Order: sequence, then structure tokens, then C-alpha cells
Amino acid sequence: MPLPLVFGVHNHQPLGNFPHVIERLTRESYLPFLEAVKKEPRFRFSLHVSGILLKWWEDHFPRAFDLLGEMVSRGQIEPVAGGFFEPILAVIPREDRKEQVLRHKDYLRRSFGVTPEGLWLTERVWEQALVEDLVDLGIKYVVVDDRHFLVSGFEKQALHGYYLTEAEGKRLAVFPIDETLRYAIPFWPVERLERYLRDVALRGGRLAIYFDDGEKFGAWPGTRKWVYEEGWLESFLRASAQWQEEGRVEIITFSEALKRTEALGLAYLPTASYKEMEEWALPAKRILELKELTRRLRVEGTHFEAFIRGGHWRNFFVKYPESNYLHKRMYRVSALSRDPQLFDQEARLALLASQCNDAYWHGIFGGLYLPHLRQAVWESLLEAEQKLRARGKEEIELVDLDYDGREEVVYTSPEAVLVFKPSYGGQLVEWSSLGNRHNYGNVLTRRFEAYHEDILHLDQEGGHAEEEVSSIHHLQKRPSAEVVRALVYDWYERHSLMEHFFDPQRGLEDFVACDFGEWGDFANQPYHFHRSGEELLFFRDGGLYPPGSERRPLLLRKFIRLRRKGRTLVVRYELEYRAQVETRCFFGVEMNFYPPFMAHGQGRLLVNGRAVDPSAPFETQGNRLTFTDDKTGERLLVKLPETLRIFCFPVRTVNQSEKGYELTTQGLAVMPFWPLDLRQGKKVELSLELEISKKRS
Amino acid sequence: MPLPLVFGVHNHQPLGNFPHVIERLTRESYLPFLEAVKKEPRFRFSLHVSGILLKWWEDHFPRAFDLLGEMVSRGQIEPVAGGFFEPILAVIPREDRKEQVLRHKDYLRRSFGVTPEGLWLTERVWEQALVEDLVDLGIKYVVVDDRHFLVSGFEKQALHGYYLTEAEGKRLAVFPIDETLRYAIPFWPVERLERYLRDVALRGGRLAIYFDDGEKFGAWPGTRKWVYEEGWLESFLRASAQWQEEGRVEIITFSEALKRTEALGLAYLPTASYKEMEEWALPAKRILELKELTRRLRVEGTHFEAFIRGGHWRNFFVKYPESNYLHKRMYRVSALSRDPQLFDQEARLALLASQCNDAYWHGIFGGLYLPHLRQAVWESLLEAEQKLRARGKEEIELVDLDYDGREEVVYTSPEAVLVFKPSYGGQLVEWSSLGNRHNYGNVLTRRFEAYHEDILHLDQEGGHAEEEVSSIHHLQKRPSAEVVRALVYDWYERHSLMEHFFDPQRGLEDFVACDFGEWGDFANQPYHFHRSGEELLFFRDGGLYPPGSERRPLLLRKFIRLRRKGRTLVVRYELEYRAQVETRCFFGVEMNFYPPFMAHGQGRLLVNGRAVDPSAPFETQGNRLTFTDDKTGERLLVKLPETLRIFCFPVRTVNQSEKGYELTTQGLAVMPFWPLDLRQGKKVELSLELEISKKRS
Repeated sequence: MPLPLVFGVHNHQPLGNFPHVIERLTRESYLPFLEAVKKEPRFRFSLHVSGILLKWWEDHFPRAFDLLGEMVSRGQIEPVAGGFFEPILAVIPREDRKEQVLRHKDYLRRSFGVTPEGLWLTERVWEQALVEDLVDLGIKYVVVDDRHFLVSGFEKQALHGYYLTEAEGKRLAVFPIDETLRYAIPFWPVERLERYLRDVALRGGRLAIYFDDGEKFGAWPGTRKWVYEEGWLESFLRASAQWQEEGRVEIITFSEALKRTEALGLAYLPTASYKEMEEWALPAKRILELKELTRRLRVEGTHFEAFIRGGHWRNFFVKYPESNYLHKRMYRVSALSRDPQLFDQEARLALLASQCNDAYWHGIFGGLYLPHLRQAVWESLLEAEQKLRARGKEEIELVDLDYDGREEVVYTSPEAVLVFKPSYGGQLVEWSSLGNRHNYGNVLTRRFEAYHEDILHLDQEGGHAEEEVSSIHHLQKRPSAEVVRALVYDWYERHSLMEHFFDPQRGLEDFVACDFGEWGDFANQPYHFHRSGEELLFFRDGGLYPPGSERRPLLLRKFIRLRRKGRTLVVRYELEYRAQVETRCFFGVEMNFYPPFMAHGQGRLLVNGRAVDPSAPFETQGNRLTFTDDKTGERLLVKLPETLRIFCFPVRTVNQSEKGYELTTQGLAVMPFWPLDLRQGKKVELSLELEISKKRS
Repeated sequence: MPLPLVFGVHNHQPLGNFPHVIERLTRESYLPFLEAVKKEPRFRFSLHVSGILLKWWEDHFPRAFDLLGEMVSRGQIEPVAGGFFEPILAVIPREDRKEQVLRHKDYLRRSFGVTPEGLWLTERVWEQALVEDLVDLGIKYVVVDDRHFLVSGFEKQALHGYYLTEAEGKRLAVFPIDETLRYAIPFWPVERLERYLRDVALRGGRLAIYFDDGEKFGAWPGTRKWVYEEGWLESFLRASAQWQEEGRVEIITFSEALKRTEALGLAYLPTASYKEMEEWALPAKRILELKELTRRLRVEGTHFEAFIRGGHWRNFFVKYPESNYLHKRMYRVSALSRDPQLFDQEARLALLASQCNDAYWHGIFGGLYLPHLRQAVWESLLEAEQKLRARGKEEIELVDLDYDGREEVVYTSPEAVLVFKPSYGGQLVEWSSLGNRHNYGNVLTRRFEAYHEDILHLDQEGGHAEEEVSSIHHLQKRPSAEVVRALVYDWYERHSLMEHFFDPQRGLEDFVACDFGEWGDFANQPYHFHRSGEELLFFRDGGLYPPGSERRPLLLRKFIRLRRKGRTLVVRYELEYRAQVETRCFFGVEMNFYPPFMAHGQGRLLVNGRAVDPSAPFETQGNRLTFTDDKTGERLLVKLPETLRIFCFPVRTVNQSEKGYELTTQGLAVMPFWPLDLRQGKKVELSLELEISKKRS
């Protein structure tokens, strides 16, 4: 009996990725892999292509789509389902989970005439509770990492085969991907791979199990040369034909393996994913501790490795408030979209698209740190919301939207969604223009990431001038001075209408460094909320603490009037200073916006009508800031009552990419500020106005 | 503001525990604790008493029941709900889970007029998917260990307060129990405890959170003296009154803490339980590896500790086939009990009772290893099944009952359930008499347990003559020679109708040692199954392998006829020997039974009418074995066609108890055997009969 090598390939591109990138990856890896394998028809394998990518092929790259169809119809490829928009299935509402899978299954069935029975689990994020839904959806097997089993106490040699698991009595087959094969294919010389497979067979393994990213065949650094030019794939296919002839190894699909072989037994898996994912899901500081522990132990590859564990995927919602906010907003729109009264097919589809996983988390590359991915999710979410609220009315609710136990003030209309957070400085955390499907508050805060330690280390110790391509997980390139300078961490989350009382000696540079001599305790502190007629009132009985001074009590009242269905905010401040001693300071109202031109490049920032360059910090004076969107004609105006000094800078994060450390602009921080001379009994009144409008055409 | 010390006590006794034990524990710990605390009415706390124990109090110990009621009505005790029969909520069917909680809630409401809003999670076995059901059941908070949070990346100092979590958008408050307090109460001197609480308050802790077993107050070794006689509890109560007067610490219930304080934020927890439970759920060998790793690391109490993890509770089903079998049989009866056509209130209750957790797992003490606990679960399960099948008919199904991917042959009638496992020697794995509510197959296999290493170590190195009582988790008592001798591990699972071809030189002692020169490959190997008319046929084309010989082919056919609704089994063997060389060996048919007299002491084992002592191994001759049940008059007969030699021994496991290492009898192994002289072409036919009957009265 030949050893079945169960072979699977997973291809996916995030919602919002640039078409030229998808095209390049298709040309460099997805297509040439299919074309090469097609020549060896006895090489049968399972292929998961996310709905997003498959649809893109159908619309923009029919050659890949048709080739896939051809290979399915001749039985060479078993199409594998997933969530259509590649969501983390465990963290989306059950009905959406079902629809995601059904849509993908249905699309595959309509396109290729085959009903898939296997499921690719996005990022292999497992929860036992998924079993019931998947079985109900007609799924017979899923594929996870061998790590899922190892951490449950299974021995590596017991994992060359599949297991059954169950929940609510419903049974599902689970294949553990052999990590060794993940590292071996396509990197080991074919002879070594052959030896390994022989070894698996000798030790009584029923199946050799492989399933991994398609980008490894041409798109990962160095693989194009290795896999195609230097002929790895050709040798592999040639060898596989020979193995088959000699009755040693047969390459087959997962469905076939399920039919041919018996389960090895029963297994239950804990919440788990692959090892790196469990590490990334930890808080940054804990990642460093975990790395230290791993270094001390030198457990890699030993049986101890399975005892060392990081966190679960859901922790990303705790680690990144932006991800959590997006997720909980998605919940809200999802609930709306499931309201039978509001049912709208297109809104449903847009909502499901907004569940695409990539923008919700961050490992070492991209993800949440890529504004265009977040933007794409927000666009889909707001598209759904616009359709669902089109006939809705204006309303204000108090809801704990982000599940932190404290209520937010949520305004919705058919035109806009605004969310204020009384518990956090009464800040405006979201301002979405439904017409423009744009959330101006889509800004990422600058935070410490575990890999920043490497940057500092490389900066001090000196890294290689050239990165090494042997592994995309270890970057060794020396960071630029600009990158090192940009390692700045914010002490507050970057939203809008945040009040600062700050040291008048400080300047733009300090603002950029998020260290500008804050004297107040307002910015991110709890405010009371009161709704009085048409006005929203946020107030705090706070204080100023100039260095070396006692607390100087100050009552701050922020009155906000929403007009034009949430497209105009009239903001009025009343400051009652209650200390005897006089205080001279600056009072700034910070806003952080992600203007549409940052997403698509069309539009500008104007100060009093003059274009300015927002790609570097600047200080200016003016009474009118305009963010234009030349694609749609929408503008966001900040109107000041008088000419004021204004700080502005692009909020940049330092994150990794396959090319090294990069700076990514996450939004613009602007802060007009007033010089204040606070005296007891003197009430200060200040105001400003924010407006979203459409350019007259 | 005083620091709230949120105080909770959990009292539970397993289904099937001996009434005298429950009474002793009530007198020694549950009652004296309540009586002492009652004197200090400002000491308010939350109390979980499992439905099983509470009902027992109501029926047999009204003093405790009434005292509890009194303390609830004066607001001193907040009753906390759970599953009525203390099941692991994550592993029972959803409808049952809901009914378990509703029944407990309802019982508390009817008894004490208060609707509980908190839930004690059995063994703190957490799965995120529980959240939805619990919220739907009106539960507002649950209590877990701080470890659940630590392994998610939270820092210990961030855990003095509660968090919110959610699933499907539904929110639930989760309190992390402070492990330090679990170790401190009632073991630290009150002054030290006071210092700790002061420290928590100084570091900004919102709540000090304690919830632990009530047995700590008088029933754990040494605690009676310490807590009552030496006055720990009195000092603690006195101190708590003083703390309250001075506005430093206030002891309150969990509900009150929920009302008074805000959540610390959002949290998601992985599949987790307390540290020891995660260790126990691993395979024995992995436990030793984990222990070795922990020793090497010396991580206890450090921030590394949270990275080192064991397995999930569900792994017990993989680790112990007996637990899995019980669980999957429970699934089957549960499905039956939820069939609206069959609905029977009493059957539902008995089914829910069979979900009581204790018999399904094993840590260091008891649990699955206590036959009376397994027996109680089987009794409840079979009571439910009897009621549900009372009007059913005889049927045979092929079902993968234990979820190992291979089908079992399942016979059911209103009188009996018989389950044969073709994939495992065609063995009879269950023979339940529904009338007697007894599964004769309820036998536990002898397996290696991690703590057996300690026994060998203590035996070799010498332990303390007296055990130390400082901790019940570390036993140091030197094992008896009998215990050391009993460390025998079975190479097959102990069921019935298992065929052995064995070395005629071997004797009883070898049989006891499970090392009796097996020459065949039948015992636990796959059989084919075929149903021919009224007969069930199990057959295997196997072989004999006497030492130093080539394989000697043998076809074994086992025909089984079920009569009297499954109360009689007529077993007929046909052996076709196909080797040229002659083989002389013994052919034994092994049976492992747990007779009812082992459960309640009333009844005997008779060989040809003569009583024998089954508490030690013996060899006898006879043609009739009778297991009597003097309580009900039921008898299990093994009828042999002629007088045969018979081996018999009590299957004993070595397990820990609070008193040291103990031997526990898990059932009786009996094996009648025939001398065989196998020659080519000679067909051997043998038979025996098994019968369950009621004594004529």
C-alpha cells in the first residue's frame, strides 16, 4: 500500500488588497503552480481559494479561474470551502458564520459543479463550538495544525492520520497538518522529502498530511527562483510520479483520504492556532517574556514545546482596541442586517465582507497596521449600514458598544454615525459618513510591539545591510534612523475632540512625540454625560497639575450640538477655573482623522484654502482646515472661531513588512490651540465647528 | 472606600457518595462554617451548594438546609446557581445544560425565595461558547480562576476586579478568583491575610476575590483543629468586623460587587481550568514530562508560569475510554430523553443526574477510579434508559457509539443493552440489565498513572512514615508492599468475551499480572462482523505466534445468539486451525464483570453452588459461575458446557486518596479455559452461555 501524501494548498488575498498586488501574486505563484501541476494529472490535491480571491479571478483573471475549473472537472483538484470572505469563523455571529460557509460552498458548486465537503479554517483558529455549525453545514472535515493536537497531549508520531471530534454529539473529521512537511515543502531537496515520507510510512503513519499557503510556490522571497527556475517543483512532480509508479507514495486529496482510511481515534482540541499566532495574540510585553522563556529552555523541536503556549486569537480584541471596536461595530451592523424587517441582500453581502479577518489582527506583517485593509473593512461595514439605515431616523442611544462595561453615546442617522465615549475624555471615537462610506476616526494609536525591541537591538548592535531571505519570519535588516526615531508610543488612544491643557513652552516636536507637558486630567479621563434638549453635554470636574504645583480645580463642560443629520458638530466649551493662583497654559483640542485622500490619494489638506503637505509635521496658523476627497467631492471642515496656532502631523507606526521595517501613516493628528490665562471666577468660553459637506458641483 | 473582599464558598458532594460521608462532611465543615459566620451578620458572602448536596440536606439534614434559608432571608448569603447535578457544563448537550441550570435556579428560588444571578462553573471548566447559553439563562456572572486570565496574557495585578466577556454579542461578567487568597484562606494567620488585603488595596485593586471549597473549613486534613479549635475562623470573623468598622475591608457577595463596581474591561478566555486540572487532563506520560519541565524551569510564582500549560478537560475522554464510553452513552440516552414522543419527566431527571461530573475524570483522588461513583452514574443512566425504552422493542443497530470512527453492534430491548465492539476483539463492552439498572461491564482497566512514579520512588527511596497534612496535594507516605505489587498495567481494555490463546505453562499469577503468554492476535484485534439471521457472527482470520515460531493461521468464528430480550447470550466458537505444525495451548474466554454485590455488598460469587472469596485471586474448576445480587435477587450465570479450569481475580488499581495510596477493586476478571490440541483441518467447536435471571421468590 502506498503512503498517501494528502496535499492541500490555501490561497487568499485580504479584502482591500491592491489589485496590482493580487495580480502579481497570481502571476508569480497561484497560476504557475496550477499550470505546472496540471501536467502531472496523477497529482491530485485539495485547494482552498478564498471567495474574495476566487471572485477576483473570475472577474479579472479568468485564466486562473478557468484553469481551476478545468482541473476540478478532471478530478485533479478537490475544491475546499471556507468562509466566503475568509473570516475567523469562531468570532462572527452564528448566522453569519453559516452564511459565509454556505456562500462559499454554493459559489464553488455553481462554478465547478462540485459540492465541497472539507473546510479550511481561517488562520486555523479552532474552538470546539465550531463543530456543531460546520457539521450542520455539511462539512465532513477540517484541517488544523498538528500543534492543536500536540498541545492536547498527543505525540507527534500519532498524528499521521486524521481524528474524529464531536460537539453536541455531531462528528467531524480533523486532519493535523504535519509541521515538518510545512517546513519541508517546497524548501527541502526532493530526496530529503522522500526520505522523510519513507520514514513516516515505516513508522506506521497512515497519511502524510500537508496543507499550506500557495504563496510559498513563487511569491515568498526567493521561492520563485527556487521553485520554478531551479526546478524544485518539476523535480517534486517527477518524483511524485515515480513514487506512484513504484507504489510508494500517492498524492491525493483530503476527501479521498477520508474515504480510504479510518480515523485514528477521538480527539478534542482546545482553543488553539499555530504557534506563532498564539504568540502574536499575547500583549507585547508578554511576547517578550515568552521569547525569553523559549530562549532559556531551548525547547524547540523537543516534546516540551507543546507545553509552552501563548494566547488565543480573541485576545487581539483585548490587545488592539481598534480591532475590538471594528469587531463590535460589525456585531451591531450584523444584528441590524439580520433584522427581517430590514433585510437587504446587498447589505448582508457587504456586512459579510467586513468580516474578512486580515484587518482584525496583527502578527509580524501588516494586518491591522495596514490602513488600506482597515479602510476596506470600514467601507464594507458602512456600505451595509448605509443600506440598512437608509430609511431610518435620527437617534441617540446609550450603549456599551465596545463591551468595556461603560456606555458610549451613539448617534445614528441615514447620513452618519457618531460615537462618543464619556468614559474616555468624552472623545469622538467614530465619525462615519455613510454617504461616503468613510469613518474619519479610523486611526491607529502608536503602541509598543514586541518586535520594536529587535529594531532597537539591530540599531545598537548593527544588523545585516541586506536582509536574509531564508525565512520571512526573521528580518535582520538594519533599521533606518527615521524608523528608530518613529518609535513613539501614545499615552492615549487617538480619537477626536480630546482636550489638552499643556505647557506653553512645548512645541510641535513634543506633540509629535506625544510628550507635550500635559497639565490637565481631562484627555482620556472619565467625563459625565448629560443630554439636555438638543445638546449633548460632557463634563468633568477635573484639575490642572503644573509641575511642582498643587491640583488646580477646573470644571470643563463640552456641549455638542449635532446638525444636518450628524454631518455638523457645533462644539462649545465652558471652562470654570477654581484655583486662586493664576495658570497660563495652552488649551488644545486634538483631533485624529483618517481623511479619504489617505486611502485613495485623491484630495488634500487645506489650511485657510492653502494646500499644505501633511506628510511631515508642521505648525501653522488658520481658522479653517479642510480635508477634501476629490473622488467623491466630500469635505471635512474644521472651523475655528478665530485664527489659531495649529499643530499637525502624520501619525506613523513602525511595523514589519517582508522588506524590512516600515513607517505606515495611520492618520493625521491636528490640534488647534488657544493660549489661556486662567483666573479664579473667570469663565472661559471657546467653540469650534466640524462639518462634512459635499462640494457644490 | 473599604476594599470589598468578595467571598464565595462552594459545597458539593458527588452523586453516589456514601450518606455517612456526606453527613460527616456536613457536620465537620459545611454546618460549623455556617453557624460560625451567622454570628457575624455583616459578613455577607456567596454560597454555591450543588443541587445534589442541597437536596440531601433538605431530605436528610434539614438543620443545614434551614440555616442556609435563614441566612439567605436575612441577606447574609447570596445563593449561587450551577448545574443542578454539578455537570461539566461545556460537555453536556445544550438542552441539558439549560435544564441543569434552570433546575438549580428554580430550586433555589422555590426554597429560599431568591433568584440567583451568578453561576459556579463546575471545576471551572471554561469554554467561550458557554457564554451565550448562560446569558440566555439569566446568569449575570460566573467565577473562574485567575489562571484563566493569566494564560490569556493578563498580569496578576490587573485581576483584582471583574471583567466582561461576550459571545454572539451577549455579555457576561467574569470574576477571577485570586489564587493567593485560595491558598491564604483559611491557612494564613489573619494578620498576614490583612497585610495582603492592604497591599491589594494599595495597588489599586478594586476587589479582592475569593471563592473555594467549603471542605477547607473543617474537612480537609488538619483544618478542623486549625479553623475551629485553634480559632482561625473566629479571629478571621473578628478581624473582618473590625476592618469593616475601620472602613478598610468589607466582606460582600459577588452580586453586590457587580452592582458596586465597574468592569475592569473586556476579556476573552481560552479553554482552561485551574492549573492542576490542566495537568491531570494530559496523558500520564505527558504529565511526567510537564513535571520535569516545571522542575527544570522553577517557574512557580513567576510570570513564566502562565506560559506552561497542560491539556483541556475534554482530554479525559481521550485518556480514559471508560469515561468516554460513559459520556457517549449519556449522549445517546440524552437524545432519547429529548425525543418529544418519549418524554418522561423522571427519565429526564435521572439522565441529568447521570451527568454529575465526578465519575468522568480523575485527578489525584477518586473520581473515575471510585467504582461507587461510576456505579451511581450508571444507575441513573440506566434508570433513564429503562423508563425511555419501557415500551420499546428489540433492535440491533450498527453505530459508532464511542466516536472512534468504527461501528459498534448495539442491541437494545426494554430489558437490556448489549454493546459489542467488532474493532476490538468483538468484545462485549457493555451488558446492562435495565431491570436491575446495572451494567455488568462497568470495569476499569489498570493503567499507568503519573503518580505511580512517586510510589516507585517512595518505595525505593523511602518516604515519611506519616503523611504530612500541610497540603493534600502532596502525599509522602510510604506505600505498602501490596500497593507496589499491584502496579500492573493491562495491555487490553477489560471487557468480556475476549479470546486468548495462551501458553499452557502460565498460571493464575501470570493472568493477574496480565502477562500470561498470549500467542494469539485475537483478544483486542479487529474482527469482522456479520449478522446472519438470529445470530451475530464475529470472526477474524488471525494467527498464533508461539515464541520462536512462524505465524500459524487460525480462523476464529464467534457466534452469539441473544435470547430472553438480551438476558441470555449463547456463545459458540468455531476454530479452524490452518497450520501444518500442531499447537498445544490454552484457549481462554475472558470476562470482566462488575457484579452488583461489589457496589452494595449484598451477594456472592458461587462456583458450582459453592461460595468463593473473590477478594483474592484464585483458581478453581467448575462449570457454573453465579454472581448473585441479594438486594434484588438478580443473578448473572456463566454456564460452561463441561467442568473447566477457571482463573479469577479482583482487578485492583492503585490510586491516591487523602489517606495515602490505596487499592481499589474495579471488578472481577474470570477466565474459564480449555486445553487445545490444534491440528490442521481439525475444526474445534466450543460454547458457553451467559444468563441474567431473577431468583424465583
